[in-house]
Amino acid sequence: MTQQKILVNGSWRNAQASEYFQAFNPSTGEQLEDSYPVSEWKDCDAALSAASNAYQSMQNLPRDTFAKFLECYADKIEANASSLVEMANLETGLPTSPRLADVEIPRTCGQLRQAALAARDASWTHPTIDTQNNIRSVLQSIGPVAVFGPNNFPFAFGSISGGDFAAAIAAGNPVIAKAHPSHPGTTRLFAELAQQASEEAGLPNGAVQLLYAMSNESGLKLVGDARIAATGFTGSRPAGLALKKAAEEAGKLIYLELSSVNPVVVLPGALQERSSEIAEEFSMSCLMAAGQLCTKPGLLIVQDSSEVDAFIDSIKDKFQQGPVGTLLSPNAAENILNTSSELVAAGATLLTNKSEFESGRFCQSNTLLEVSGDSFVSDSATFQEEMFGNASLIIRSRSTEQTISILSLLEGNLTGCVYSGTDGSDDEDYDSIVPTLTQKVGRVINDKMPTGVAVSPAMNHGGPFPSSGHPGFTAVGLPAAVKRFAALKCYDNVRVHRLPELLADKNPGGVWRQVDGQWSQSDIE
Amino acid sequence: MTQQKILVNGSWRNAQASEYFQAFNPSTGEQLEDSYPVSEWKDCDAALSAASNAYQSMQNLPRDTFAKFLECYADKIEANASSLVEMANLETGLPTSPRLADVEIPRTCGQLRQAALAARDASWTHPTIDTQNNIRSVLQSIGPVAVFGPNNFPFAFGSISGGDFAAAIAAGNPVIAKAHPSHPGTTRLFAELAQQASEEAGLPNGAVQLLYAMSNESGLKLVGDARIAATGFTGSRPAGLALKKAAEEAGKLIYLELSSVNPVVVLPGALQERSSEIAEEFSMSCLMAAGQLCTKPGLLIVQDSSEVDAFIDSIKDKFQQGPVGTLLSPNAAENILNTSSELVAAGATLLTNKSEFESGRFCQSNTLLEVSGDSFVSDSATFQEEMFGNASLIIRSRSTEQTISILSLLEGNLTGCVYSGTDGSDDEDYDSIVPTLTQKVGRVINDKMPTGVAVSPAMNHGGPFPSSGHPGFTAVGLPAAVKRFAALKCYDNVRVHRLPELLADKNPGGVWRQVDGQWSQSDIE
Repeated sequence: MTQQKILVNGSWRNAQASEYFQAFNPSTGEQLEDSYPVSEWKDCDAALSAASNAYQSMQNLPRDTFAKFLECYADKIEANASSLVEMANLETGLPTSPRLADVEIPRTCGQLRQAALAARDASWTHPTIDTQNNIRSVLQSIGPVAVFGPNNFPFAFGSISGGDFAAAIAAGNPVIAKAHPSHPGTTRLFAELAQQASEEAGLPNGAVQLLYAMSNESGLKLVGDARIAATGFTGSRPAGLALKKAAEEAGKLIYLELSSVNPVVVLPGALQERSSEIAEEFSMSCLMAAGQLCTKPGLLIVQDSSEVDAFIDSIKDKFQQGPVGTLLSPNAAENILNTSSELVAAGATLLTNKSEFESGRFCQSNTLLEVSGDSFVSDSATFQEEMFGNASLIIRSRSTEQTISILSLLEGNLTGCVYSGTDGSDDEDYDSIVPTLTQKVGRVINDKMPTGVAVSPAMNHGGPFPSSGHPGFTAVGLPAAVKRFAALKCYDNVRVHRLPELLADKNPGGVWRQVDGQWSQSDIE
Repeated sequence: MTQQKILVNGSWRNAQASEYFQAFNPSTGEQLEDSYPVSEWKDCDAALSAASNAYQSMQNLPRDTFAKFLECYADKIEANASSLVEMANLETGLPTSPRLADVEIPRTCGQLRQAALAARDASWTHPTIDTQNNIRSVLQSIGPVAVFGPNNFPFAFGSISGGDFAAAIAAGNPVIAKAHPSHPGTTRLFAELAQQASEEAGLPNGAVQLLYAMSNESGLKLVGDARIAATGFTGSRPAGLALKKAAEEAGKLIYLELSSVNPVVVLPGALQERSSEIAEEFSMSCLMAAGQLCTKPGLLIVQDSSEVDAFIDSIKDKFQQGPVGTLLSPNAAENILNTSSELVAAGATLLTNKSEFESGRFCQSNTLLEVSGDSFVSDSATFQEEMFGNASLIIRSRSTEQTISILSLLEGNLTGCVYSGTDGSDDEDYDSIVPTLTQKVGRVINDKMPTGVAVSPAMNHGGPFPSSGHPGFTAVGLPAAVKRFAALKCYDNVRVHRLPELLADKNPGGVWRQVDGQWSQSDIE
């Protein structure tokens, strides 16, 4: 058993720890060999000081250095993809191909390279110049950022490889990554590559650091520490809420992605027109990656009609006969079971039969439940609890009005989908429900399922609380995601030779700037 | 004594209240006649429901309606300026002219009109279109906004007339204004004009509402209520922190402006070159409006030199001989006295002598203190406490290094100024201290005092906590301030005819949009 080291201030060192943990292989249920430290506060403190020092010198680095780091890191990830994929498969049970090798590796490298473009191009900094008053403002780096990654995307949302990491670095900030305990080995391999890339690109020691774990108390202290500027957290709601409280009480920023049930409304015309395609799409979207996706459709709302029984039966069959994916953590199966039991106790019907599975592997039978619109409305808090995994709830609504009531009772969600007839027969219904839906979600979708979040400049992976902590920002999509880790700085009457490059009269890079109200790539005359 | 009514859901009605309060005339210390209700929760609840209903219809209004309202309101303010000025002078003691009539009225109307431009132009919504993936996003209205205004700008930061109000409306949100108890009559007059303008422009009932006061408990409940989307607060730190906690625990946004001491660093070359001008500017900036400005320079940092004694003496003379302004509240004088006594107890020297003043009027002698850099560094928390009023603290620093230490110990501030020699003799010092200063402030200023916050698109009136609650946003400057009250909404694969106007292929208004990474005013082909 190897006791792994943490990455602090540019070197791999033994942690200050009296506790250690091991990850599991979800495909067998066995504990893995390597042992990872639960850092004491001293490690957090050392990382914070190193990040703070790193930030001082990072402020003087050209933006190109951050871009080079991100590109060099992406290259190294590609060059080492096979070992990353192998380790992640071992620690998460996620399929090697296509998922890890052919989807997540390209996505992760794509994000890092888009972040590099954002660092170089700097359009996201929104330079604004008022020539008459000689006042100029721009978004700049904010300071050390802590990133807590989730368990379900070991690469693309990984704490030292994913979107938050890429965005924080692109803005010019050091990152203290906190590994998810389900895949510490994967995170370690990424951190090794990140550290090499950091050295090659000329980032200072402490620009990228890795801790595996810490006590809850230390975690809360970390996000509220004076040396931290902001935190990015993706994960469970209770942990996220505790960190949110600690950060915000200290006046610190924290961007969160907590929970989402991603309602899908299928309108009558759509059901009449293409019921079997929708049943197929919905089931695929629920069961892919064992439903362990933040945009898994956890609520399907259909209006009762003669087609509905067959539609629900068809989904039920797909759940019963479909492959049962591997869950990421030892307690995931029990969580699904417990939540579905709560729903049944509250009045839902379990449509799928439980089956037996091989012992060892972390899994739970695909779980489909149904509840009436009346029941949902009478106990909406219970029925909209997120079941993270291969489980979903169908709501049989009595009418368009009831569908609106159901939507109006939802908490904030990342996404909301509407399937409607292509012949226009649902257009009136669409118009009456979508205003309510739009208020509850960050992304409105037509005629497709919410899973598969494109890394697009126009994406919003965010939404009203608790799907995110701030509905004005997205966690996916560049350069928009970078803005979370930036502070607005204004230069008022500052002498010309002292202005930051992006606010100078000359604009040799042709950055898009708002000069006296007009967007321009020109110099100021 | 008239018991005044609250404005809820489009009409003036009697409050549900068992308590009432009266404002003071700070120029005489006498209580004013009118009596204003401390609303019970029932009033808050009614306002919240009305705002919620108003928001439903506001989402379907053209942006032009909000612009028309803002312009019509500005016109009415100008037409009724004399009665507004008279009432505000009575309630705040602020001079009729130039302050209220010639500065605040034009500024307030200017802000409202700039907000109207922002509503019409919509460039702040940052429409982003990815044609390849057919994903489109835009900032949209967020929902009902509560605005708590401060005591020091009854017009320009007033809860139903100021920057937060204008920004929230420009984004298309209803506002529940909570008057500051020091000028309820002024706020009432504004609310009357706002309601008239609302009717004329065609805003729904409940788009603009006014409550005068409520229990602390109800205030905390209001900002965390499910029907509220965001709150804007400008005022005292303890009240702001309590509201922040309540809002954030409920997952609600709150934008705050809490406290700021606005450090001014005078470098040796500047002192040698223009010591008397700087003494004059500093004293003016401290004593204007009795120092009751959020950007009043509360800390002056000078490096010890042969010129320093004369410089400080000159400031002291100006404080002793300068006019003593009227303070806004009955306890303001005592607050200054208490804080300055704390500073003296901690090692500061009181440079000004106390004098006697006319009884009745709210005032306190102009107060100037001095402390050594060593003392400041050893107890920075005490010495950077904000003294809201005509008081300031001079720090005599031993060296550039100590100035950097002093700055590094500051909390977040709205502004930070540096005066340096025009001959370049201070340039090295400037370069060494400004990185630290920049991290601590939202606005870096050269060679002028921080008071006088221009309403410029490039302004940042914000900064690191506690000067604001989010360093990415500004409270002053349009259209930037509007973005605080908006949510990012994404339309993924949404059918063309259902897209919001700003995201449609056609762009008849020539709005600046980011299409496939390029800024453009064109249609999409």
